[in-house]
Amino acid sequence: MDNESFSSSEGKPIRCKAAILRKAGEALVIEEINVDPPQAYEVRIKILCTSLCHTDVTFWKLDSGPLARFPRILGHEAVGVVESIGEHVDRFKQGDVVLPVFQPQCEECKDCISSKSNWCARYTDDFLSNTRRYGMSSRFKDSSGEVIHHFIFVSSFSEYTVVDIAHLVKISPEIPVDKAALLSCCVSTGIGAVWKVADVEEGSTVAIFGLGAVGLAVAEGARLRGAAKIIGVDLNPDKFEIGKKFGITDFVNSALCGEKKISQVINEMTEGGVDYSFECIGLASIMEEAFNSTRTGSGKTVILGMEKYAMPISLGSYDLLRGRSISGTLFGGLKPKLDIPILVDRYLKKELNLDGLITHELSFDEINKAFDLLTEGSSIRCVLWMDK
Amino acid sequence: MDNESFSSSEGKPIRCKAAILRKAGEALVIEEINVDPPQAYEVRIKILCTSLCHTDVTFWKLDSGPLARFPRILGHEAVGVVESIGEHVDRFKQGDVVLPVFQPQCEECKDCISSKSNWCARYTDDFLSNTRRYGMSSRFKDSSGEVIHHFIFVSSFSEYTVVDIAHLVKISPEIPVDKAALLSCCVSTGIGAVWKVADVEEGSTVAIFGLGAVGLAVAEGARLRGAAKIIGVDLNPDKFEIGKKFGITDFVNSALCGEKKISQVINEMTEGGVDYSFECIGLASIMEEAFNSTRTGSGKTVILGMEKYAMPISLGSYDLLRGRSISGTLFGGLKPKLDIPILVDRYLKKELNLDGLITHELSFDEINKAFDLLTEGSSIRCVLWMDK
Repeated sequence: MDNESFSSSEGKPIRCKAAILRKAGEALVIEEINVDPPQAYEVRIKILCTSLCHTDVTFWKLDSGPLARFPRILGHEAVGVVESIGEHVDRFKQGDVVLPVFQPQCEECKDCISSKSNWCARYTDDFLSNTRRYGMSSRFKDSSGEVIHHFIFVSSFSEYTVVDIAHLVKISPEIPVDKAALLSCCVSTGIGAVWKVADVEEGSTVAIFGLGAVGLAVAEGARLRGAAKIIGVDLNPDKFEIGKKFGITDFVNSALCGEKKISQVINEMTEGGVDYSFECIGLASIMEEAFNSTRTGSGKTVILGMEKYAMPISLGSYDLLRGRSISGTLFGGLKPKLDIPILVDRYLKKELNLDGLITHELSFDEINKAFDLLTEGSSIRCVLWMDK
Repeated sequence: MDNESFSSSEGKPIRCKAAILRKAGEALVIEEINVDPPQAYEVRIKILCTSLCHTDVTFWKLDSGPLARFPRILGHEAVGVVESIGEHVDRFKQGDVVLPVFQPQCEECKDCISSKSNWCARYTDDFLSNTRRYGMSSRFKDSSGEVIHHFIFVSSFSEYTVVDIAHLVKISPEIPVDKAALLSCCVSTGIGAVWKVADVEEGSTVAIFGLGAVGLAVAEGARLRGAAKIIGVDLNPDKFEIGKKFGITDFVNSALCGEKKISQVINEMTEGGVDYSFECIGLASIMEEAFNSTRTGSGKTVILGMEKYAMPISLGSYDLLRGRSISGTLFGGLKPKLDIPILVDRYLKKELNLDGLITHELSFDEINKAFDLLTEGSSIRCVLWMDK
């Protein structure tokens, strides 16, 4: 994995292992594939480790519609090292430790230049589209020569992948790579939603719906901001124990609310609602409960979960009128190239706690076991090591 | 109206004229009533002039439910002068020019102390409740001794009214009183929504749904912030001409959009949506169009209109997730005692334009004509003079 061995592969296709999804919901198949060299503004990276996120599971199950493509290489939470670069790439070089990130930052469009949000106009209307800077092409082919689709610009379930520089962030090599991988999706999404989107302040009250990796990162972000009360809501009471490490002070078991709505329970616990609520599940009904759990006059709700059935959400117009607000965010409102290095720095200074999020570690060959662990609710994050 | 004549009425009931609503939707009846002296923390004021707002019309029509109360004195946009004060009133004195404001600011509760919003916890859950500091009592009785209900803490359709100090703002006597009256509701609501809630910045794009007094105040607020494009949306094309005075640069006649949705038209006019949209009508379907008219990634929608049928609004969860936000506001997020004097000052410095909002002036006795003018869409604001 030193630069010398990379030099021998530069400019040529690389033959390596990848986990291919050939049919929705079926076990991934580890196959030998060819990864083409990077084109202009692209970088080919060797994945060091990757972890499994619920969005991978959502697309693993998706069996129809324009977003269901087969064969495909899933995976988007990972860390890698630069093997080779394409033309016009001047800020990455062989050997750099990098995070591939589904959220782009071209640094040139109107939205990237603005400080108002982390949107990138290159990202167009459909963040799930397959479009790259130079069209729909993938850099993957299977052994028969068939093109294999990529996934949200990353496709980290492969020993090598090719990523546009808009989706790539160079990071300090000092951070352990498994912890770094978490910053390429779940942790940044959760922390960013608290710091950038909601802007939670000291002494405030917070409710978090769904205590997976994103929800726990929300808790960590709120803890670091000095929130006075951080209420975790989940069906699984085991999540309270792990949540305490990330600052959760109170727990609501949504399965035990009986005839009361969760929002009613939270309103009673907080004398009129929390200052901030975060939806980290992806269900319209829970988004509505999150909204209704906030304080009249100033309550803010942030949606982080991708609605699993593309359902709209329904809000009381008077509840809005009386001063509540709701917003949504991808990647926690963070601009990856600007903000990920800040999170790495906070981790290296031992301020940001990432211990406890990685509950399982497996070799890449055991990837289907990682899907089982996540879907059965046993894991928070399972890291897959490519070289173990 | 000098202080000497006030001294003679102090501590006694005042017999004066008021416009009484005895049955929903029927003409108001000018009657002689008795206005009791102010109790503790209350001030009795002589109304100088009052104007008619759509919220008065909404409650004039309301014929059932807990919010429909008869007989009642409507009116909440007004200016007055202090006639006498109750116990524990130390910041108002006889002769002060004051605005009665439906939005309270007790300056003591958790919300008032916070800078996060203009909510006041004393205002409890239902801003339409009849609750006063000391219970439900009204200070009005008709000539038979029957209690007449007050309306959202103001009841300005009376020569005299009694207002809690939480609902009262002292202003400079230099501002013409008819202009001042507009600051007690419509102008503050519109300007505040732009400055405090949306925080519109120079060069941004804005869409305003509904060009009544509130919508035109939104335009004025956006103009003063240097917005580059201010799109007005209304069914009445005459509104474009008056709108130009307040900075409206483009007009969409919602009756002429044909098969296109208004949001589609605005998306096309702005290459992907406006930065900010404001709903000043009070219809859920228009609130949804306002939301859909904003830019992916960072678009903000502010709801100012009270939904006429209490309908919920439905938002695309992916539209939220991709960075849009929506919030609502009463009184434009302004804290009355803090912010109204700032608006008065901006007016006196000739920065804030209020010319053109008052389209009609009548004597108080002609109040039913003012209802006709507003409901038929002929007036923006009709000022009723009590002494003319």
